[in-house]
Amino acid sequence: MSTDLETGLPSIRQIQNLIRDEKEVEMKLLTNDLLTGKIRWQDQNCICMVDHYDQPTVIWRQAIAYMKPKP
Amino acid sequence: MSTDLETGLPSIRQIQNLIRDEKEVEMKLLTNDLLTGKIRWQDQNCICMVDHYDQPTVIWRQAIAYMKPKP
Amino acid sequence: MSTDLETGLPSIRQIQNLIRDEKEVEMKLLTNDLLTGKIRWQDQNCICMVDHYDQPTVIWRQAIAYMKPKP
Amino acid sequence: MSTDLETGLPSIRQIQNLIRDEKEVEMKLLTNDLLTGKIRWQDQNCICMVDHYDQPTVIWRQAIAYMKPKP
Amino acid sequence: MSTDLETGLPSIRQIQNLIRDEKEVEMKLLTNDLLTGKIRWQDQNCICMVDHYDQPTVIWRQAIAYMKPKP
Amino acid sequence: MSTDLETGLPSIRQIQNLIRDEKEVEMKLLTNDLLTGKIRWQDQNCICMVDHYDQPTVIWRQAIAYMKPKP
Repeated sequence: MSTDLETGLPSIRQIQNLIRDEKEVEMKLLTNDLLTGKIRWQDQNCICMVDHYDQPTVIWRQAIAYMKPKP
Repeated sequence: MSTDLETGLPSIRQIQNLIRDEKEVEMKLLTNDLLTGKIRWQDQNCICMVDHYDQPTVIWRQAIAYMKPKP
Repeated sequence: MSTDLETGLPSIRQIQNLIRDEKEVEMKLLTNDLLTGKIRWQDQNCICMVDHYDQPTVIWRQAIAYMKPKP
Repeated sequence: MSTDLETGLPSIRQIQNLIRDEKEVEMKLLTNDLLTGKIRWQDQNCICMVDHYDQPTVIWRQAIAYMKPKP
Repeated sequence: MSTDLETGLPSIRQIQNLIRDEKEVEMKLLTNDLLTGKIRWQDQNCICMVDHYDQPTVIWRQAIAYMKPKP
Repeated sequence: MSTDLETGLPSIRQIQNLIRDEKEVEMKLLTNDLLTGKIRWQDQNCICMVDHYDQPTVIWRQAIAYMKPKP
């Protein structure tokens, strides 16, 4: 595993766009938690979301079921 | 992990066909969620489905239990 | 990950036999779903089962707990 | 992933011994199923158990939580 | 897998900062356990947290859903 | 995957110490089982615990959520 994120992949690029556009998303986790917020950064292991109070949550990729941009 | 999808695999090709034919599918996830829609794209990490309102959901492959084309 | 299935492994060969012999099997998934049918094909990611109405279900290997040939 | 099982590992050797000695074991799966029987074979993906009626169950390694030889 | 942690990744560095600053965090696990404490060390497999009584808990990375620094 | 355990990692060394010191530990699994006992051996796939009656349980690493040495 290298330090570079595969920015050629649509799923990685889409998340980069969501970060840039500061769009709200919903993340459903394998724990059945549903987290809402904006994505701040991503790396190979994790995706970081911030909520309305600007509190960060670092989500492990392995725990993600799906992600839905808020319409 | 390279940027290329293994298009020689039946499971990958079948999804490519479902994208091309805009067929409706059901996706059962490890969270026990059952999502319905059309597949828009796939990459190595994720499969993107759109629902009847054309809202996208990016599903992590790791979270998929099974997929059933609607008869 | 190459496109070739490791046909030397007993678990892979046994599934090949089940496909050839069109035997009924039960698949228990990590979601606790129990699927019944005949195996149509396998690749490195997935196993495809068809039910009594010949409807296919593509099962991700990662979601399989166990498989039992019907006696 | 090669076709050879790492027979140098204690966990692999212990299962080989259980096969040879035809010892009864309990397998607890991530589904919370508890299977009882004798181990017939193992490969890199799966472990095969047979029950009292000699019916085989092929268990995917990924689904195993623990194994207890019956005292 | 080598013995070196990828200290270039934001998720790894953020945990290093949390260790250095002795900040309290919440860890949500795939078991739905919610653990609270300070992170003592991390390696490639695990993250070690200590609670208010200085008792350590070694958490396997594979079991982590998300981590939230306490505000 | 080679036959050698990465003894340079803190998590592996800590388990080696627990084996040598015959300390009691609690293991929480992804099944939500909580096992108590002493660790007898570890390899790359599994960790073996023995209970008060000296009965062994072979735990697959993939199923471990966390481990707590008994205070």
